[in-house]
Amino acid sequence: MKDQLAFGIDIGGTNTVVGLVNRNGTIVQVDALKTNSYKGAQAFVEALAIKLKQMIVISGDYEIVGMGVGAPNGNFYTGSIEFAPNLDWVGVVPLAEMIGKQVKLPVVLTNDANAAAIGEMMFGAAKGMKNFIVITLGTGVGSGIVANGELLYGHDGFAGEIGHTVVDPEGRPCGCGKKGCLETYCSSRGIVTTVMEMLAKSNEPSILRKIETSQMNSLMIYEAACQKDKIALEAFEFTAKILGMKLADAVAHTSPEAIILFGGLSLAGDLLLNPTEKYMNHFLLPIWKNKIKLIPSPLNESNAAVLGAAALAFKQFV
Amino acid sequence: MKDQLAFGIDIGGTNTVVGLVNRNGTIVQVDALKTNSYKGAQAFVEALAIKLKQMIVISGDYEIVGMGVGAPNGNFYTGSIEFAPNLDWVGVVPLAEMIGKQVKLPVVLTNDANAAAIGEMMFGAAKGMKNFIVITLGTGVGSGIVANGELLYGHDGFAGEIGHTVVDPEGRPCGCGKKGCLETYCSSRGIVTTVMEMLAKSNEPSILRKIETSQMNSLMIYEAACQKDKIALEAFEFTAKILGMKLADAVAHTSPEAIILFGGLSLAGDLLLNPTEKYMNHFLLPIWKNKIKLIPSPLNESNAAVLGAAALAFKQFV
Repeated sequence: MKDQLAFGIDIGGTNTVVGLVNRNGTIVQVDALKTNSYKGAQAFVEALAIKLKQMIVISGDYEIVGMGVGAPNGNFYTGSIEFAPNLDWVGVVPLAEMIGKQVKLPVVLTNDANAAAIGEMMFGAAKGMKNFIVITLGTGVGSGIVANGELLYGHDGFAGEIGHTVVDPEGRPCGCGKKGCLETYCSSRGIVTTVMEMLAKSNEPSILRKIETSQMNSLMIYEAACQKDKIALEAFEFTAKILGMKLADAVAHTSPEAIILFGGLSLAGDLLLNPTEKYMNHFLLPIWKNKIKLIPSPLNESNAAVLGAAALAFKQFV
Repeated sequence: MKDQLAFGIDIGGTNTVVGLVNRNGTIVQVDALKTNSYKGAQAFVEALAIKLKQMIVISGDYEIVGMGVGAPNGNFYTGSIEFAPNLDWVGVVPLAEMIGKQVKLPVVLTNDANAAAIGEMMFGAAKGMKNFIVITLGTGVGSGIVANGELLYGHDGFAGEIGHTVVDPEGRPCGCGKKGCLETYCSSRGIVTTVMEMLAKSNEPSILRKIETSQMNSLMIYEAACQKDKIALEAFEFTAKILGMKLADAVAHTSPEAIILFGGLSLAGDLLLNPTEKYMNHFLLPIWKNKIKLIPSPLNESNAAVLGAAALAFKQFV
């Protein structure tokens, strides 16, 4: 039997990365294209197909089992990208079908956080786990929930939007149109807002006062915290309290073995992880206290989305 | 082939009700005993076994497929009742095993809200649904979550504790030891606390001022609301806002087709249902607005727990 490969296609707001991945989670070929440089989705798919066909030609003596696609607002049930705010495409784009017409391989699509969860299950921190949650702490906050060994898609394909649960019904405006969503506090943008609020409310000296607010990012806050900047440290504590509280809520829904934090803010490591664990345990029912593992993803951030998308294809087609 | 029956055993803080149920959801025999009138769990199980054996004798020419047990803090994986606050039994009681030793039939156990969810799936409002949530609004707030057609038990058997998600981290003390749990606001006790707070804070005349606070219950508040008592109406509005917000959070986790409200406060009907639906939609992401059904359970409250426990046995053993 030939060794098996799967395409992992990670569609981001800026770049689309395509990888051919083997069963061990090694990316044996990789290529990329600019997502928004094409006039509409059809032109993008045609350019993507050329890349895919080139990669098939040079892949050699392998069986390619299929293509997995991770994309913002990707719907597993319909294979469509639906009203993605960061993509230039309008309305509902039946992307899986469009790719499948160009390249004769089976194709499966889901949103990026769900793909990350499948990636963790096959190649990362959740190997062998049947119940876990992946939280992606990037520009937004995404989540993928696995229960009984299966990713939850729910009735309509959109399960796992923990980033849009409510922290404060009168809180910060969210890109989704609601107020006070978890995403407005615990994303890389959220912690910048937190620092700006703290700088405004206190007279505490801070390295961060020297940064133009339009230029400030979560990495700068992390670096300030590493230098014991009080405002930066408080901002991580505040972020961890909210994240810990909402993770405890998530545990109360699906009772996972572990929660895996991925991307963006999670790269702050123990600075975020330790207080988040403390607050999560504070807000958990006694039956769960100190029993739920909180784990940073071991996957390399630049590869993880491609691995997750490929893992989805292995799961679906093998 | 003989017609099939299953035992449904509902263990409550006061009464334990035992029913023999057929595949159509008809209770063909029913009996009951006082849960806490026995010296310890073993004596209770022996008394229960006598009832069960009597019922088997008079059941006639049927096949009895097994016994389902719904009990507070019941753990599906272990078959035990673990630290139930409303029962006299101490610590972990391996109830399924104890019953199985007395009566030679297969036995399966879960908590009461999970049993209610299985009951709704087999006999109630969730027939044919693969993704739904049952919320029980009684003395406490319980929940059972079904995803992909399966009840979620999670890693440890305790999934579905939505009643203990956080509404206000500095809020009302909860029986679980935490503060501000959903249960402290949206249970039948919670709405009484809400009315007491409202009576203290305002000078608004109210029928409810004539009731001793130690005697007040949710039915009295319902009756006052039916007479357009302003405090009572405001209490329902306040309860509905919190419930709607936390139901929207639950939708963001598992994306159900419907949420079914059962017991206690849900008997207030449209008085609770209409504003809860309004607030839930307010707090939902645009993709879900006006798409999630909010349904009062069609099951008779006194029968539903027995039906749910029997449904669990049918599901497990047929």
